[in-house]
Amino acid sequence: MGTTSPETPETIEAAARRSAVLEDRIAADPGAFRILTGDRPTGPLHLGHYFGTLANRVRLQRAGVDLFVLVADYQVLTDRDVADNLSEYVEGLVADYLAVGIDPSTATIFRHSAVPPLNQLMLPFLSLVSVAELRRNPTVKDEIAASRQASVSGLMFTYPVHQAADILFCKANLVPVGKDQLPHQEITRTIARRFNERYGPVFPVPDALLSPAPSLLGTDGQKMSKSRGNAIALSADPDVTARLIKRAVTDTERRIAYAPETRPQVSNLVLLAALCQDRDPHAVAAEIGDGGASALKKTVTDSVNEFLRPIRARRAELVADRAYLREVLAEGNERANTIADRTLKEVRTAMAS
Amino acid sequence: MGTTSPETPETIEAAARRSAVLEDRIAADPGAFRILTGDRPTGPLHLGHYFGTLANRVRLQRAGVDLFVLVADYQVLTDRDVADNLSEYVEGLVADYLAVGIDPSTATIFRHSAVPPLNQLMLPFLSLVSVAELRRNPTVKDEIAASRQASVSGLMFTYPVHQAADILFCKANLVPVGKDQLPHQEITRTIARRFNERYGPVFPVPDALLSPAPSLLGTDGQKMSKSRGNAIALSADPDVTARLIKRAVTDTERRIAYAPETRPQVSNLVLLAALCQDRDPHAVAAEIGDGGASALKKTVTDSVNEFLRPIRARRAELVADRAYLREVLAEGNERANTIADRTLKEVRTAMAS
Repeated sequence: MGTTSPETPETIEAAARRSAVLEDRIAADPGAFRILTGDRPTGPLHLGHYFGTLANRVRLQRAGVDLFVLVADYQVLTDRDVADNLSEYVEGLVADYLAVGIDPSTATIFRHSAVPPLNQLMLPFLSLVSVAELRRNPTVKDEIAASRQASVSGLMFTYPVHQAADILFCKANLVPVGKDQLPHQEITRTIARRFNERYGPVFPVPDALLSPAPSLLGTDGQKMSKSRGNAIALSADPDVTARLIKRAVTDTERRIAYAPETRPQVSNLVLLAALCQDRDPHAVAAEIGDGGASALKKTVTDSVNEFLRPIRARRAELVADRAYLREVLAEGNERANTIADRTLKEVRTAMAS
Repeated sequence: MGTTSPETPETIEAAARRSAVLEDRIAADPGAFRILTGDRPTGPLHLGHYFGTLANRVRLQRAGVDLFVLVADYQVLTDRDVADNLSEYVEGLVADYLAVGIDPSTATIFRHSAVPPLNQLMLPFLSLVSVAELRRNPTVKDEIAASRQASVSGLMFTYPVHQAADILFCKANLVPVGKDQLPHQEITRTIARRFNERYGPVFPVPDALLSPAPSLLGTDGQKMSKSRGNAIALSADPDVTARLIKRAVTDTERRIAYAPETRPQVSNLVLLAALCQDRDPHAVAAEIGDGGASALKKTVTDSVNEFLRPIRARRAELVADRAYLREVLAEGNERANTIADRTLKEVRTAMAS
């Protein structure tokens, strides 16, 4: 497996400090960075995705970073419900990307299943990590701790290695992550290091870029999630949006304030309006003052619908031209395949010499 | 992972009885069977391979079974020493196959690394087995029992799933195996069953065909192996063969007999001569009688060189025409890719409906 010891887990604070340094390097020389990011096509993207990751991708692309966006269609095939609507979800995802401002003339948007050589990396990569290291993956650890080892599938167990293949096939050197994803990145870094050490320098050792994402909850105050019905899809129409916000949980205090610790539901709505207005949440709350829940909800509804108006308009145009969406994907797939073939050739040459 | 319980280990006796029934079915309708078999290109094939598996492949092909032969080049890439001579080893393997009588006009001989879509099966297949099931693999179990969990790589751990992809991509329904390989087959059968149960009938559930192979040892009385220098390569020249047999371990008893339990080394040489002459080992021993070790070795040398003469002559012609060997591989690769693409399309359709 190699003599390089595995990466030691990084604290959130250390990751944040390192990421601040990275941001400076990106600003100084954006062309030196390639990002791999992506989504599972399980349904329309929502505001949680937007403020959590999409806005950051657009920001980095506009700064001049090379953007690769993986539509992880192959992984979701094992989910029956999703598989039924896969083409629709995949094209919807591409529409969401372009609507929020990802520019397909420089970004590479591709389907995992359309890039077979990517999977060829699994064999050498699997040889570079031990079973003991794979067991340290927090998701796997949690499942095993709950004494349900039988419920950990081979796919879940090897997931960090699949992720390493997704990232390294295109030699991405930057991976934007949330706090929860930091440990996954360690396996990718370990694999890249060990490969280079054993066979010669082929891969970058990708940095996790911890990006400041607001803790946006769903309209019911729970984690935002499509399946909970508490998320505002980018593509939802204004009336649906208004109804969803109208049903949002608040509290009985008339005066609106931004106090996430003591008044989480109200503060979450304030935050949503503030993000859409690109203003400070305290200022937004102060403006509503004694208006109570109904004034708050009106502000949120107006802010969200106003914010999403241009995105929705672009998206409507895009979905009306499915041929174009498919063309964007076809071009991305081709680019990804070319790069995957090139990387694979380098891998083989390195391994055979 | 599916409700189908894993295959229960079969006893050798049960496997032998089942295989006898299979042989009858093969004789009755050979066209209903497709075999997947193969080798790692780690050096020239030897007499152990010939009597252990190659002769059986040729027999089955001649009987009318569709033969797929996998050159497992991608797996050996992780072995530095082999990787250095890979092209030579791969072409040598093809020459060995054709020299012993595998007919490339109906057999499909292909390189693992040349069939990328094959690896696409890894994702759904990994989702169909649990970590607990993978741990039951005897090789993994032995390593873990020796408390060297850190030494079990992800590749070794997932090996039976790679094997399932190798077998099922071409819908092979028959896999010739030795006794040691019976447990590996169980995972392939479990995966095929669970896939079909969950997504609809796509894969055959392949039968392991336990073939009667003689227990042939190396010239030193140990397990025959290229790295021990105790194996007679099909391609070795007659003088090298003679020298190797001359150094063979025997015993001090003048009378030659076939008694594997009490006189293993002498009996092994008798067996080798008998196999080459296609005669009963007792008859061969009786013929040598009191001739002692030197008469025995002369008989063995003559038998082996006589037996290998036509194989070596064909092989020499074949290696003189490397373009032809490469063409055989290219055609096999193309056939394998066509089949892999077709299977993958069926897999996706099944999973998405």
